[in-house]
Amino acid sequence: MKDIITMAHGAGGESMRRLLADEIAVLYDGHADLDDAAIVPGGPRLAVTTDSFVISPLTFPGGDVGKLAAAGTINDLCMRGATPLYMTVGLILEEGLPMATLRLALSSLRATCDEAAVAVIAGDTKVVQRGKGDGLFVNTTGVGMVGAPQPPSSCSAVPGDRVLVSGYLGDHGVAVLAAREDLPLRTEIASDCAPLHGLVAALISAVGSDVHVLRDPTRGGLASALNEIAADSAVGIMLEEEAVPVRPQVRGVCEILGLDPLCMANEGKLIACVAPSGAAAALEALRSHPLGQDAAIVGEVIDSATPRVQVTTGLGTGRVLSMPAGELLPRIC
Amino acid sequence: MKDIITMAHGAGGESMRRLLADEIAVLYDGHADLDDAAIVPGGPRLAVTTDSFVISPLTFPGGDVGKLAAAGTINDLCMRGATPLYMTVGLILEEGLPMATLRLALSSLRATCDEAAVAVIAGDTKVVQRGKGDGLFVNTTGVGMVGAPQPPSSCSAVPGDRVLVSGYLGDHGVAVLAAREDLPLRTEIASDCAPLHGLVAALISAVGSDVHVLRDPTRGGLASALNEIAADSAVGIMLEEEAVPVRPQVRGVCEILGLDPLCMANEGKLIACVAPSGAAAALEALRSHPLGQDAAIVGEVIDSATPRVQVTTGLGTGRVLSMPAGELLPRIC
Repeated sequence: MKDIITMAHGAGGESMRRLLADEIAVLYDGHADLDDAAIVPGGPRLAVTTDSFVISPLTFPGGDVGKLAAAGTINDLCMRGATPLYMTVGLILEEGLPMATLRLALSSLRATCDEAAVAVIAGDTKVVQRGKGDGLFVNTTGVGMVGAPQPPSSCSAVPGDRVLVSGYLGDHGVAVLAAREDLPLRTEIASDCAPLHGLVAALISAVGSDVHVLRDPTRGGLASALNEIAADSAVGIMLEEEAVPVRPQVRGVCEILGLDPLCMANEGKLIACVAPSGAAAALEALRSHPLGQDAAIVGEVIDSATPRVQVTTGLGTGRVLSMPAGELLPRIC
Repeated sequence: MKDIITMAHGAGGESMRRLLADEIAVLYDGHADLDDAAIVPGGPRLAVTTDSFVISPLTFPGGDVGKLAAAGTINDLCMRGATPLYMTVGLILEEGLPMATLRLALSSLRATCDEAAVAVIAGDTKVVQRGKGDGLFVNTTGVGMVGAPQPPSSCSAVPGDRVLVSGYLGDHGVAVLAAREDLPLRTEIASDCAPLHGLVAALISAVGSDVHVLRDPTRGGLASALNEIAADSAVGIMLEEEAVPVRPQVRGVCEILGLDPLCMANEGKLIACVAPSGAAAALEALRSHPLGQDAAIVGEVIDSATPRVQVTTGLGTGRVLSMPAGELLPRIC
C-alpha cells in the first residue's frame, strides 16, 4: 500500500520523513526544510514557518486548537532565535461546526498571540460540507525577525554540546490521548501547550551564541527531534534516560498503553544543544523562568560515524533510540 | 440556525462577510483585513497573504489544486502591487489519498511558483483519517516585497476612476462546476487559473500610481469584489453590463442553471480601478499581455451616499448588483 497516504505519513516519524524526502521535497529544489522555521535567503532577516493544526478533540486539558495553533507557530519561530511578529490564520470549517467552538478557538488564538505581542495580519476562511472535514482545521503561518547572525539550527550541533530539555516531557501527548479516549485517570494531566518566546529570550540573553540548536519536540517527541538533530548535524547523541524529566502519571499511562514517553508530543517544551562552557548558565536561565523550572541536562552530542541517538539506562546498559516508525498518536497537533 | 457554520459562510458573499465581521474580526483588533494581502506595518515593506484551497474536484480543465494554490496566493500579493517572493505550503492529506494525486498537485504547485520566480521556503504536512477530510487541502501563505509607496488598495477607489477587467469572467466557476457535476457541455470550458505577476507588472509599468485598486474576483466573482471596493472606499460603482466580457458558453451554462456570471469565481483575472487619465494606457497595457487580451473598461467609480454597485443594461434600465447572499458554488477554490 505504498501508493496511498496512510496515517503513518502524518505521525512525525520515519514514514513521514520519507514522504517529505521522496515526494514533498519537489517543492524545495530537492531538499525539505530541516528546521522548525526557514530563514529567508538574502534581504531582510526574516524567519517564516507554517503549520496546520488538525488536533482531535478540539479542546483538551490545558488548551484548545486556537491556543495550540498560535503557540505552535510562535514556538517554531523562537526555535530559530527569531522574534515572532506576525501571523496569518487560515480556517477550514466543517458545515455544522458550533459557532461557540469557533469563537473559543479564535479567542484563545488571539489571547496567545497577544501574550507574545504577535499581530494577526491576514486570514482566510473556507467551509467544507459535513463529513468532508472534522470541525475545525487551523493553519497558522508566522513571520519573525532574526536577531543573531548565526541563528540556532538543527544542523549546528557539535560534539561536546550538552543537550538540555526545558521540563517534563510527554504531557501534551498524554493529555490529548486521555481527552480523546476518555481515559479514567486519577489525576488529570494537562497539556504543556504554551508560547515559548519568553523562555527562549531568557536562554539567549544568558548564553547567546552558545546555543547551537533549538527544537521543540512536537510530533514524535524527543526521539524524533534528537534523531533529526543527529542526522542534520551528522553527529551522535548520548541520552541519559534517567535524567529525562517525565511525570509519574505520564510514565504510568505510557506503560499501560505500551507507549514510549520519549516519543510523545510536547507543545511547550524545547530542546537545546549548548556549548559545554554555557551549559550551566543555560540550565540556570531555563530554571529561572516559569516555563523552564524543571529543565535538565539530559545528554551530550558526540562524534559518531553514523548519526544516531544512544540511550544509557540506569543499569548502565545502552540501546539505540530510533526515529518512531509508524503511527504513534494521530492528530496530536 | 445562526449558531452553527453553514456552507453559505464560505461562499464569498454576505454571510461570509458577516462571519468575518462578527466572529473572525476578534483576531485583528476588531477589523478584518479588507485587501487580498496585508502590508506589514512599519519595518520592511512586506505584503503577506494566506489562503486555504479546498476545491472539489482536485483536478479540472485548466488546472488542479496545486496550480490554483500557487496562483491564488501569487495573485493576492500582486493585487497589492507586491513582487511575490516566498511561499509556505501546508498540506492536510486524507488517509487513502492516492500518492499520484499528491504528486500531481505538488508538481503543478512547484511549476507555477517557478513561473513567478517564487521560492517555497517552509512547509507542513498533516494526515487525517479517512472521512475526516476530502483528499487534499492546501494552504499557501505568500510573502512579497511592496514597491510603490502607495500600494493599490480596496480602500483607494475615487470617483472618476475607470473600472477595468482583464478578460472573460466566470470561466473558473463554470469549469469547476462542469467538472464536478459532469455537465455534458458541447465545448469544454477551461479554468482561467493563472499567476498574474506578469500582467500586473505590465499594468503598473504602464500607468504606475494611476492604479488605485487591484482585486482578483475569486469567490463571489465580480459582484462580490465590486461591492467590497464600493464599501471599503465609500463610493458607488456604475457597471455597464454589456461591456463585461463573458464567453457565450459561460453565459449559456449560467442561464440554464440560474447562475449569474457576475457572481462566478475567476482565478486568473483582475479588476483595476484606474484614474481616468491612465485608463486608456492601462487598457492597452492589459491587452498587450497574453493574459489580458480581452480586457475591457466596464464601468466607473462614482460619488454615492451609500456604497453600492449599479448596473446599467443594454436597454438603458438599471438595477443594483448586490453582494451575493447565500451559497453560490461551494468549494470553488
